[in-house]
Amino acid sequence: MASSTETQPWQKRTKEYREAAAAKIPEAWRLKPECTADLGPTSSKSVLDVPAKCGILTDRELDITANYDAVALLEKLASSEFSSLDVTTAFCKRAAIAQQLTCCLTETFFDQAIDRAKNCDEYLATNKKPLGPLHGLPISIKDSFNVQGIPSTIGYVSFLDHGPAKDDAALVKILLALGAVLYTKTNVPQSLMTGDSENNVFLRVLNPNKLLLGAGGSSGGEGALLAMKGSPIGVGTDIAGSIRIPAYVNGTFGLRPTASRIPYGGQTGPGRAGAPGILPVAGPLARSVRDIEMLMKAVLTYDCWTVDDAVISAPWREASSPNKKLTIGYLLEDAKYPLHPPVLRTLKTAIAKLGAAGHTLIPLASQLPTLDLMAEVMESAFTGFAMDPAKTSLNNILKSGEPVVASIPTASMPELKYFEPSVNDVFRLNVERREYCKVFRDLYVNNGLDAVVMPMYAGTAVAHDKYGMAIYTVLANLLDYPAMTLPYLKADKQADAEYRRDVSYTPLLLGRPMRDEELVQHGQIVADALEIKSL
Amino acid sequence: MASSTETQPWQKRTKEYREAAAAKIPEAWRLKPECTADLGPTSSKSVLDVPAKCGILTDRELDITANYDAVALLEKLASSEFSSLDVTTAFCKRAAIAQQLTCCLTETFFDQAIDRAKNCDEYLATNKKPLGPLHGLPISIKDSFNVQGIPSTIGYVSFLDHGPAKDDAALVKILLALGAVLYTKTNVPQSLMTGDSENNVFLRVLNPNKLLLGAGGSSGGEGALLAMKGSPIGVGTDIAGSIRIPAYVNGTFGLRPTASRIPYGGQTGPGRAGAPGILPVAGPLARSVRDIEMLMKAVLTYDCWTVDDAVISAPWREASSPNKKLTIGYLLEDAKYPLHPPVLRTLKTAIAKLGAAGHTLIPLASQLPTLDLMAEVMESAFTGFAMDPAKTSLNNILKSGEPVVASIPTASMPELKYFEPSVNDVFRLNVERREYCKVFRDLYVNNGLDAVVMPMYAGTAVAHDKYGMAIYTVLANLLDYPAMTLPYLKADKQADAEYRRDVSYTPLLLGRPMRDEELVQHGQIVADALEIKSL
Repeated sequence: MASSTETQPWQKRTKEYREAAAAKIPEAWRLKPECTADLGPTSSKSVLDVPAKCGILTDRELDITANYDAVALLEKLASSEFSSLDVTTAFCKRAAIAQQLTCCLTETFFDQAIDRAKNCDEYLATNKKPLGPLHGLPISIKDSFNVQGIPSTIGYVSFLDHGPAKDDAALVKILLALGAVLYTKTNVPQSLMTGDSENNVFLRVLNPNKLLLGAGGSSGGEGALLAMKGSPIGVGTDIAGSIRIPAYVNGTFGLRPTASRIPYGGQTGPGRAGAPGILPVAGPLARSVRDIEMLMKAVLTYDCWTVDDAVISAPWREASSPNKKLTIGYLLEDAKYPLHPPVLRTLKTAIAKLGAAGHTLIPLASQLPTLDLMAEVMESAFTGFAMDPAKTSLNNILKSGEPVVASIPTASMPELKYFEPSVNDVFRLNVERREYCKVFRDLYVNNGLDAVVMPMYAGTAVAHDKYGMAIYTVLANLLDYPAMTLPYLKADKQADAEYRRDVSYTPLLLGRPMRDEELVQHGQIVADALEIKSL
Repeated sequence: MASSTETQPWQKRTKEYREAAAAKIPEAWRLKPECTADLGPTSSKSVLDVPAKCGILTDRELDITANYDAVALLEKLASSEFSSLDVTTAFCKRAAIAQQLTCCLTETFFDQAIDRAKNCDEYLATNKKPLGPLHGLPISIKDSFNVQGIPSTIGYVSFLDHGPAKDDAALVKILLALGAVLYTKTNVPQSLMTGDSENNVFLRVLNPNKLLLGAGGSSGGEGALLAMKGSPIGVGTDIAGSIRIPAYVNGTFGLRPTASRIPYGGQTGPGRAGAPGILPVAGPLARSVRDIEMLMKAVLTYDCWTVDDAVISAPWREASSPNKKLTIGYLLEDAKYPLHPPVLRTLKTAIAKLGAAGHTLIPLASQLPTLDLMAEVMESAFTGFAMDPAKTSLNNILKSGEPVVASIPTASMPELKYFEPSVNDVFRLNVERREYCKVFRDLYVNNGLDAVVMPMYAGTAVAHDKYGMAIYTVLANLLDYPAMTLPYLKADKQADAEYRRDVSYTPLLLGRPMRDEELVQHGQIVADALEIKSL
């Protein structure tokens, strides 16, 4: 066995790969040493202010990247007030800075993006109309989305062997057809199944609010990049919380849509194709509720089935509820996963404020069949995730000789370590899932609920490798309910000095399947009531 | 072992059960011996004319049952031109006659239906508006749909132990909420997995066009009842062709919708809950394309998710295609299942006539990856149907001591007899399914298809226990594409004297998932081009 100080082949290879990636960042966009002093994963600093201070972005670039949500940018792009070249250049620069501070990117293709932006500008000048509803807008995407000619390593050293992707993912085809500019892919955890975005190819994403905190996962790079304002809007994926956790710990808006609404096909996945059970979904991390709606609506104007036949072909509807006063159920803590003080405080504050705004708030705990329902649901969901007898994801790690990252053992149930899945388990889990769906349908129907407010997680952001199990968030995946995260309040240092939680707390708003339209509408109503502003 | 002449307990029990069911038919509705002479499963007679000749129905009842589709009846019911009492009585009587000739019913509840009809009439008289879009309309349903207080034996002797159902199926709740009158459940095959509707509780459904032919399955009772005009519209279920096969061999319209559009929940099923893979669907057998549209639209005006959370909550849309000239792909025969002469003739006639009407017809055979694709698809689908290690359906048969009906061994693949399903098979079948979906998506996209015309089956209707494998129909289930059957042409006795096929041939029209709306629209366009009239 090689000693730990000896350099392994995989280490040499990934170091070279990272150096090549870093070399693609133009000299002029590199941070000076004084901007990066005392940073890194043990620093308690926030780096959110570095882009404004580092001198790399012009005032106009700072304005473009910091002061508009995607809807506002699209208006300025469509009217030629901003050129796509200027907007794209600004976000490429700010993303490059974010990468140097938080390690949030994987593959960058800034040159291609700038060429594309020029083409968008030319199209608009020539045709006097935008390319599509996303005309000229830079959009960041999680590393798993294939882009032709660019590798999708998704944090496996062994996937370096795959080389560049041969085709675009379905969603990439659609975003390009709608006029978007793609410029970077974002970092993820090895296996995509932990709330800590660390891997041995692109290393660890740091939380820009405080570098010693985790940036969440698996769409951790998206979360950190959005918080750094290095992207106006990004797309992540979520099978247990992977959109919502990074949105939560970095402080952005996020939507896990109903499965199969946004095309998921054509990604590089960590697991074995054909898994039964809970479906992974793609969805936005964003600066505002209206940006989430804009992206959903834009993608669903496209006939998505023509590029991904696994989608549910249903157009985006106008939300049907004319009622501005909502009936909102709420769930507080699960018996096995009590909420930390700032989380409980934030939830109770939100509930009180929503009630004061005239909405009807209904406690649901007494109607649950058991007080540890979240723990039960999580066990059922994670048993399903362990259903592959070939252990494909683990073998993707082992075959290169790279080690398993530290957070993986913390993000799965120890009881499942020696689990040998059987066909009977497939049937059993499907039945359990329908029973949980029945429990929640009854809650909605019997109480006439528009939505449910519930915790995102027991704590707020935590130290690296401490996120552990995706309790609370995986419920929406198991039920296949759309779920939105909204950044609301911050932990209070005075009251909670012993905790390392000083980023946004984000309550999770749960909707009804295929009623993503109404969830977005209700999300805006809740944001208004809680006075949550766009980022 | 008991000799075949000795009466087994299950035989005594089912005989008594059938006698009790028969005794529920009022004396005045029973056929005189001269009307039933020389009938039964070896008779080559048609019994379609018996209702008009037997003297049981009044002229008005014959008019009500024979001369209107459901849309026309609903108009007359809503305007009080027909009372629900009169319409319901007429259909109860005609269904009772159909039962005596073809054994198409299981449980009848005519008294309840007549009470319900009176309530509908009173509601309309008092409130000057109908109860709902299905106001006062009798609708027949397959035996598997639970109706509170009525047994759902679905052809298993062992299920007699279950007693009356404790709740209504989701669709039953909806039909009642929309104003419909339920009056009978319809016969099925033991296991619901054969194209011959025979079981040891309610015996065998005969084809009213010619009694020695099979009535199809598994919604065979629905098919025969509709052909007898004993129902204006019925609901069956389909996992391999079980709506379309009975529609085909009896000569009615039928739609297998996209899965999870019409609520399927709350039925008594033959298999084990939680099966992975192909989803069974519920859908209409009807007298016209517009009746199919009416039922789909009516059900989807209801918020179906509130009674069945497994549905896709998406409203019925206005079909989006403004184009009256369609691009229709067509598939003729699979290499392993050549088409019998009348089927080939009918398909070629339909293709020629559609072309002459200005539609674009595109042969697809040369674009298929293999010439026996249908056989391959069928193997993949039926492997999935054999995935339950507990063999629940077989045990439902064996536990009462009843024998397996003759058609079951003919309706599954002999290769699967000793199949021991593994978790790896679950993954493999899911992957195969996505690959077949890709093949068909490419056909649609590359050729710009609106729909595909293809065979329903290699032959037309066949003798009892000869239907065999559901080749061709199971494709739509595996792909989850909506598929409509339209009755078009009949076998030509002169040309095909040696064949026992003299009922309608029904080409299958295949749509796109979640585009049921467009399929129905295209079905009407095809029916118009082929001059197919309502029944």
